[in-house]
Amino acid sequence: MRLLRIGVDYYPEHWNKKEWKTDVLLMKDSGVNVVRMAEFAWSRLEPEEGTYDFQWLDEAISLFERHGIDVVLGIPTMTPPQWLSQHYPDSLPDLPDQHLSHPGVRGHRCYNSPSMRILTAAITKQMAQRYGSRKSVIGWQTDNEFSLHMCRCSNCLSGFRNWLKEKYGDLKTLNQEWGTVVWSGGFSDWEQIALYPTNERYFNPSLLLDYRRFQSQSVTSYQQIQIDEIRSHSRDQWITHNTWSAPLPLDLHELYDELDFASFDYYPATDPDKAKSNPYSGALLLDRTRGFKQQNFWVMEQFGGMPGSWMPVWRSPYPGFLRAFAWQSVSRGADGVVFFRWRSAAAGAEQYWHGLIDHSNVPGRRFKEFQQFAREANRLSDQIFGSEMQHKVAILYDFDSHTALQLQPQTEGYDYYEYIKLIHRSLLKSGVGVDILHRLDNLPEEYRLLILPSLFVADEESASHIEAFVRKGGTVVALPRSGVKQMNNQCWMKPLPGPLSSIFGVSVKEYDPIGSHVHRIASLDGHSYECSYWCDLLEADTAETVASYDCDFYKGTPAVTRNKLGQGEAFYVGTFPEESYLKALFTRLCNNLDIEVYPDLPEGIHMTRRIKDGTEYVFVLNLSREEQAVSLKQRMKPLLVDDDITKKSIDSLTLSPYGVAVLEL
Amino acid sequence: MRLLRIGVDYYPEHWNKKEWKTDVLLMKDSGVNVVRMAEFAWSRLEPEEGTYDFQWLDEAISLFERHGIDVVLGIPTMTPPQWLSQHYPDSLPDLPDQHLSHPGVRGHRCYNSPSMRILTAAITKQMAQRYGSRKSVIGWQTDNEFSLHMCRCSNCLSGFRNWLKEKYGDLKTLNQEWGTVVWSGGFSDWEQIALYPTNERYFNPSLLLDYRRFQSQSVTSYQQIQIDEIRSHSRDQWITHNTWSAPLPLDLHELYDELDFASFDYYPATDPDKAKSNPYSGALLLDRTRGFKQQNFWVMEQFGGMPGSWMPVWRSPYPGFLRAFAWQSVSRGADGVVFFRWRSAAAGAEQYWHGLIDHSNVPGRRFKEFQQFAREANRLSDQIFGSEMQHKVAILYDFDSHTALQLQPQTEGYDYYEYIKLIHRSLLKSGVGVDILHRLDNLPEEYRLLILPSLFVADEESASHIEAFVRKGGTVVALPRSGVKQMNNQCWMKPLPGPLSSIFGVSVKEYDPIGSHVHRIASLDGHSYECSYWCDLLEADTAETVASYDCDFYKGTPAVTRNKLGQGEAFYVGTFPEESYLKALFTRLCNNLDIEVYPDLPEGIHMTRRIKDGTEYVFVLNLSREEQAVSLKQRMKPLLVDDDITKKSIDSLTLSPYGVAVLEL
Amino acid sequence: MRLLRIGVDYYPEHWNKKEWKTDVLLMKDSGVNVVRMAEFAWSRLEPEEGTYDFQWLDEAISLFERHGIDVVLGIPTMTPPQWLSQHYPDSLPDLPDQHLSHPGVRGHRCYNSPSMRILTAAITKQMAQRYGSRKSVIGWQTDNEFSLHMCRCSNCLSGFRNWLKEKYGDLKTLNQEWGTVVWSGGFSDWEQIALYPTNERYFNPSLLLDYRRFQSQSVTSYQQIQIDEIRSHSRDQWITHNTWSAPLPLDLHELYDELDFASFDYYPATDPDKAKSNPYSGALLLDRTRGFKQQNFWVMEQFGGMPGSWMPVWRSPYPGFLRAFAWQSVSRGADGVVFFRWRSAAAGAEQYWHGLIDHSNVPGRRFKEFQQFAREANRLSDQIFGSEMQHKVAILYDFDSHTALQLQPQTEGYDYYEYIKLIHRSLLKSGVGVDILHRLDNLPEEYRLLILPSLFVADEESASHIEAFVRKGGTVVALPRSGVKQMNNQCWMKPLPGPLSSIFGVSVKEYDPIGSHVHRIASLDGHSYECSYWCDLLEADTAETVASYDCDFYKGTPAVTRNKLGQGEAFYVGTFPEESYLKALFTRLCNNLDIEVYPDLPEGIHMTRRIKDGTEYVFVLNLSREEQAVSLKQRMKPLLVDDDITKKSIDSLTLSPYGVAVLEL
Repeated sequence: MRLLRIGVDYYPEHWNKKEWKTDVLLMKDSGVNVVRMAEFAWSRLEPEEGTYDFQWLDEAISLFERHGIDVVLGIPTMTPPQWLSQHYPDSLPDLPDQHLSHPGVRGHRCYNSPSMRILTAAITKQMAQRYGSRKSVIGWQTDNEFSLHMCRCSNCLSGFRNWLKEKYGDLKTLNQEWGTVVWSGGFSDWEQIALYPTNERYFNPSLLLDYRRFQSQSVTSYQQIQIDEIRSHSRDQWITHNTWSAPLPLDLHELYDELDFASFDYYPATDPDKAKSNPYSGALLLDRTRGFKQQNFWVMEQFGGMPGSWMPVWRSPYPGFLRAFAWQSVSRGADGVVFFRWRSAAAGAEQYWHGLIDHSNVPGRRFKEFQQFAREANRLSDQIFGSEMQHKVAILYDFDSHTALQLQPQTEGYDYYEYIKLIHRSLLKSGVGVDILHRLDNLPEEYRLLILPSLFVADEESASHIEAFVRKGGTVVALPRSGVKQMNNQCWMKPLPGPLSSIFGVSVKEYDPIGSHVHRIASLDGHSYECSYWCDLLEADTAETVASYDCDFYKGTPAVTRNKLGQGEAFYVGTFPEESYLKALFTRLCNNLDIEVYPDLPEGIHMTRRIKDGTEYVFVLNLSREEQAVSLKQRMKPLLVDDDITKKSIDSLTLSPYGVAVLEL
Repeated sequence: MRLLRIGVDYYPEHWNKKEWKTDVLLMKDSGVNVVRMAEFAWSRLEPEEGTYDFQWLDEAISLFERHGIDVVLGIPTMTPPQWLSQHYPDSLPDLPDQHLSHPGVRGHRCYNSPSMRILTAAITKQMAQRYGSRKSVIGWQTDNEFSLHMCRCSNCLSGFRNWLKEKYGDLKTLNQEWGTVVWSGGFSDWEQIALYPTNERYFNPSLLLDYRRFQSQSVTSYQQIQIDEIRSHSRDQWITHNTWSAPLPLDLHELYDELDFASFDYYPATDPDKAKSNPYSGALLLDRTRGFKQQNFWVMEQFGGMPGSWMPVWRSPYPGFLRAFAWQSVSRGADGVVFFRWRSAAAGAEQYWHGLIDHSNVPGRRFKEFQQFAREANRLSDQIFGSEMQHKVAILYDFDSHTALQLQPQTEGYDYYEYIKLIHRSLLKSGVGVDILHRLDNLPEEYRLLILPSLFVADEESASHIEAFVRKGGTVVALPRSGVKQMNNQCWMKPLPGPLSSIFGVSVKEYDPIGSHVHRIASLDGHSYECSYWCDLLEADTAETVASYDCDFYKGTPAVTRNKLGQGEAFYVGTFPEESYLKALFTRLCNNLDIEVYPDLPEGIHMTRRIKDGTEYVFVLNLSREEQAVSLKQRMKPLLVDDDITKKSIDSLTLSPYGVAVLEL
Repeated sequence: MRLLRIGVDYYPEHWNKKEWKTDVLLMKDSGVNVVRMAEFAWSRLEPEEGTYDFQWLDEAISLFERHGIDVVLGIPTMTPPQWLSQHYPDSLPDLPDQHLSHPGVRGHRCYNSPSMRILTAAITKQMAQRYGSRKSVIGWQTDNEFSLHMCRCSNCLSGFRNWLKEKYGDLKTLNQEWGTVVWSGGFSDWEQIALYPTNERYFNPSLLLDYRRFQSQSVTSYQQIQIDEIRSHSRDQWITHNTWSAPLPLDLHELYDELDFASFDYYPATDPDKAKSNPYSGALLLDRTRGFKQQNFWVMEQFGGMPGSWMPVWRSPYPGFLRAFAWQSVSRGADGVVFFRWRSAAAGAEQYWHGLIDHSNVPGRRFKEFQQFAREANRLSDQIFGSEMQHKVAILYDFDSHTALQLQPQTEGYDYYEYIKLIHRSLLKSGVGVDILHRLDNLPEEYRLLILPSLFVADEESASHIEAFVRKGGTVVALPRSGVKQMNNQCWMKPLPGPLSSIFGVSVKEYDPIGSHVHRIASLDGHSYECSYWCDLLEADTAETVASYDCDFYKGTPAVTRNKLGQGEAFYVGTFPEESYLKALFTRLCNNLDIEVYPDLPEGIHMTRRIKDGTEYVFVLNLSREEQAVSLKQRMKPLLVDDDITKKSIDSLTLSPYGVAVLEL
């Protein structure tokens, strides 16, 4: 069935069978065509070690089948049962965030625990054997919301030592790569390599970066157990994993390598104080998800009600909010939108993470919006399904750089990811579509503009990819703290931006980490802009100055430079300018590069395109609390405007708060 | 001796015997008729295990006896000696607040430790045998300032498991009651039930509530050891316990069940920044203490000097402050007022918790105020002693609801107890006397108005008590987050306010947890008020609307409703309004219910009545730094006005800052 | 060689030998005449236990020798190698600040560990034997930046118990001195004395003060191992230690007793927000360092680049900053200025603690300023070297009082050391030179004015020294919280200021700990000033009132008094006045005492004198970002003004931002 998938996350194990029947009828009636189940149900599927009980799940799947609803099954390994934690204490991680080191929550499992790996293979095998050829089971979700664990258990420690032996061969090489001579930190025995539950900033940053790489790969290799078991027993079923916006970076590019497509759990903030930034940061998360495999994706948990539980309950969503943000997922490449969750849990720690239906079991306003979205999406499914996004602008998100910058914050207030948000937002506000890349090798031909936000860790190979891109006519923009570190997290002993200097034709004479102080830069045309966090004082070599500092003792010193190289141009932005500077810069570059811009998009209007066989489906969403008017430049055929279906072609439209338009071009 | 008791807390073990003599003479001269002793003196009474030394205490008691001063003895179990902690390590609790897990402080004892229980029985028996028939020893204090301990030691853990076996019988029932199916958390072995030193918000809330109930009952059962020993050996002596304003709720209703009366340790804040709220929150603490047994009480530690030690030293009290707050205790039902402490400690961690006399040993301004109070109280003792308070308004403080709301905060900024303060204050500012209830069964006939602040945990039985109260003509007012939880801390699967809905004739369609945002409601007469934290969007069934929301997308939706039921009325207030709204509402209700109000009481004026044989003793206190004039409505006979004794009857009076009036009606 | 020493901290072990050669040539060319080395190089000097490798250090020393650069060697015991921590786990401390309890950082060593002491003696002996008579090795640095460790390991615990046995003899005496009777805390077995990793404020303050004294002495006795080894093998080499501005006080007076002179690591804040207070607090640190032995000192780590690493990188220094602060060190008594560090580390946790040269290895602006300073200092070396400072004003910094006040903060916002800064600054702003004393015995004759900031811990002996000073004609000024505690940290049972009362002819009737509230005092001439933290309400005995409170219920009560005693005067300041009050008071006192003042010095101008054979070398530094004009009162001969060398004598001068003048009188 080639269609947009509209679904819900459902927990049959929480409700009695009478409720199942009422629920499935209401789902069917509402337009649901898929449910995700079982991802937290290990204790019900394997109540004792080796004793399995699939009857209830069989019944549930059959019930959905009878009503024409397909199923996605989650491997329930995020919630090891009490018996598992009790009998295999090595399955519990040893984490700084202690609540995950104990059973009864979720996530209480060490990825490197041998017992955990064996029992994971066993439950996955049982599920895959049983449902691998079941037609209504269309796909699988590995585990749930993997996150990087800074586990210090003995299995992780010995795993890390082995990983290092593999990587470095001998201690002499390791000592050299890590620069352990400093502070007499050299290792003379592998057993000396250890991890301590304490302030990491005093420890060797090369060790710390490698440890995070190791732990990220531990997640990937743990997931591979599940993938292998599923693939051995399944036919025509896809496998995905649902990530979330975690505080610690995980190398998600690696994580998705062996999966069919990416999925994301999307909870846009309902707080009106966040109403301005929220749809843009949400757009970035969706774009990032699409970027993991450069293809369409699913939202496996779409906002269905107010989160709450370990934090206070969120604000109630504004009318239209729930539907509009579901459309936002589709508008940025989602082919499946599965709402979390059908009904709020009456028990357990997650009681206040609200579902589409409240504890009262009386469907209310949010449920009606969900039904509206489902109806609309089903109606447009034939047209939209199969369409894809095509962009000429890309931002590089680099796992190593993000991680290394988290390990060693450079200046007060600066956050690698937060500034990517600002870059991304400055492009979206001009209607420019952006892809998020994770690697510099194999840069697709289509890209014309590549943005490098603090490519902190970079080597000669990174430099050669970037240089090739520019020489062939691309434009690259780099931000400060690029080219600072070698892959081993030692500093480059060259003028900054280190191995990238020749591309940008510039070198950093000195720098001023201004932190929370606000400075100013002036562009050549006399405009003045604020900048923050960091000021590189530049010395142009082959480059020319585009903007200079406008304050402090280095007033007049170059702040932004442009270097022509081959067919292309390389901009070095030596500070972190405010959004309006980036918007002006990127608009100018897009104009030069024949990339369409909408420089006057009102605040909160998100415009995207999905393309199929030459037809463009244009999504115009008003993700704000105010009515907004949008000029389209071209006439388009409305497929959906607000909640009307209109027929005549239009070249402008007015959207009510949280209004949605889908147009055909 | 039937009289008001005026006393001091005295530590003979800290001073040499020459000082005892000077001290007792000054006490006698100042009007002291009782001292509390020995509650921290375990190491002096039992220097080695089983070796007792009562000689010094005998001498001290005899000395007081000779000067006609009676004695209250404290059981010194809050301060286990070093030898006890050393020889019986299981006596030390395993607490998140680590300083209590070590000897040398106070409170370092686990209520469930078998050793601690045996040694507690032993020292109590020794004391009770020796002083149980001593005439000048008029009563006993169990331990000192019990607090709920979140102890995770092995004795607490096995105690908890046994408590659960008793309560639920088998694991199947327990799993069902706790809803452990969520996140595969089901228990298959009692040994799996455990407690972790970590962020509780991720753990099962049903388990957590039961654990607090268990620990609260552990305190009560530990205290019972002391009560049993004292009762076996004493004649005509009462037993009490002195509670304080602890952060973690303890089920004090249970704690006082077997005691003769309640006591409280009262330290009103001296900081002028708190001078406005402080006398009202103090009044609530005193009313709560009276409410534990619905009878008069003692203040066992009355403010005698600036607290300090683990926190910076408090501000010096304003002239009149010390005396006025001692009168406040009497004015709200205290029959004994014992000041903490005679003289500041020269050694130990509590050096800066000042006594009536400073380290200098030169009696100063505070001491003179103490003497004045003692003189006045002794003079009025015949009239006041035996009088009691009689109120028609009650607020329900519910241990389960308070605890469950602490476990799962619902919205930013809302605090169950803080909002009770606001309710209570809004009544006091109209001169309305209030009782604080702890149970809904056996509601006394006298009450006309009952206020339910977030009766979060409620069952059908709670509903039936409330309904009966209303049907018989009572008025009830409920606040949001009532009827949310079953007794097992699972959510009710009914429209809110759950089992209470039919009483209020209303249901909650949806809610908006506004947290720190401020919203507005409009009453029918057009007045507008601020409200905070939470907005229930109401759908009136049999109820009528009294006020509506005045902002956001639900403007116009009912916010406050009134439902007539039998002879009475039930108000549902769907949000947390500011004080002025409550004051207006309660004033109107009191007027309807023939409850006298003084709507124009100046800020800081506290008016209460104690009644004996038809005579009313009216207390008018000016607990502010400004002179205030008060109209009395009726002519009364002044027994004390400021520091004068006047004879002629008056119908109004002017009180100087911290002035005190006692009148007869 | 009798000359000012200009140097750098250099780490040959971090760089290859080719770099050594380039580095030494550039050093020589820049005016460097000394380098400090080896203080973190234990693992290179002793790669395995008992196997030593001095070849690389020999080579490095020889290389410097060949270029006429002398060497200071650091004993590398702050950085025990991995093998040491692995084989001797008792060498690791058990600290609340956990990162120091693990190898791989620096400072991970317990001063009381027997293994650590043995291995310390061994490496020190090896180094001293090898280099003790090497001519170019002019001196030694013990360890690096000692700090007080609140270690709770078993060696520290048994060490503490032995220290107590030595001090008190028996437990009865200890119990009495510590007042353990409070809360039944008496010890009946030495084994009961313990230390807990928890909130200390609830524990016995007498124990806690003794524990800090013990740990401070542990540092001193640990250092003595190094001193003894060096002295046994060295000829004509001095020994010093480099301290820093640590949060926990260490008894540095004791620490320096056996050393030849004091050293300090000086990092003035570059943040412009701190530009006003920073040069004054830096001046205090330098004055304090001079005070440890009342003689000239070295700066062993002078600011050479922006600190950073475990905190964000500091702001870049303003032009002139680096040079001016190097001159500040000389201007307050430094005879050696060694910059930290030659070049930034490319590896390890300290990567962003910048050196004179950045990672780029391209000397920049900071390096040029360093060269300028070196050139200037070398030129003036003959004149300045051998000169000393001579002051008539002293502030007493008391280790016991500082420690005891940290253990028991008295009032919100007050910090003992911060208020010393304010006192010191109020004097510097009038051009008054100040010494910082650490003991009251042997008060030098020269002092005329002695200031006692909260002499919290004081006994009759302290009183007698102060009284003698006053009777002989000195003026003393005491601040509140003086004379509160006996040496055993129990309160004096006398009217405050306890044993000092008769000197000041005053007693404290009561006090008001106003914390962050601001109060006012009025001086006799009608001026009004703010005061903070604490108000002693004074009762003058033989004293007369100098200022009174101007608010609250004690308006009009004496706040500052003067008592004539013998030939001198004793001022009791009962509150903590703002800087302008102190400036006015001290200016008046200096005028009376014939101490020269410059009451109109502009903000940021620092004026000091070094005297040799009757010639005065006057330093005038503009440590601000603004140009400033200074009147000199007398004609002086300029040796250096800004960066010019002028010849004619002047009586005023104008200094550019961060300008430096050295004058001869």
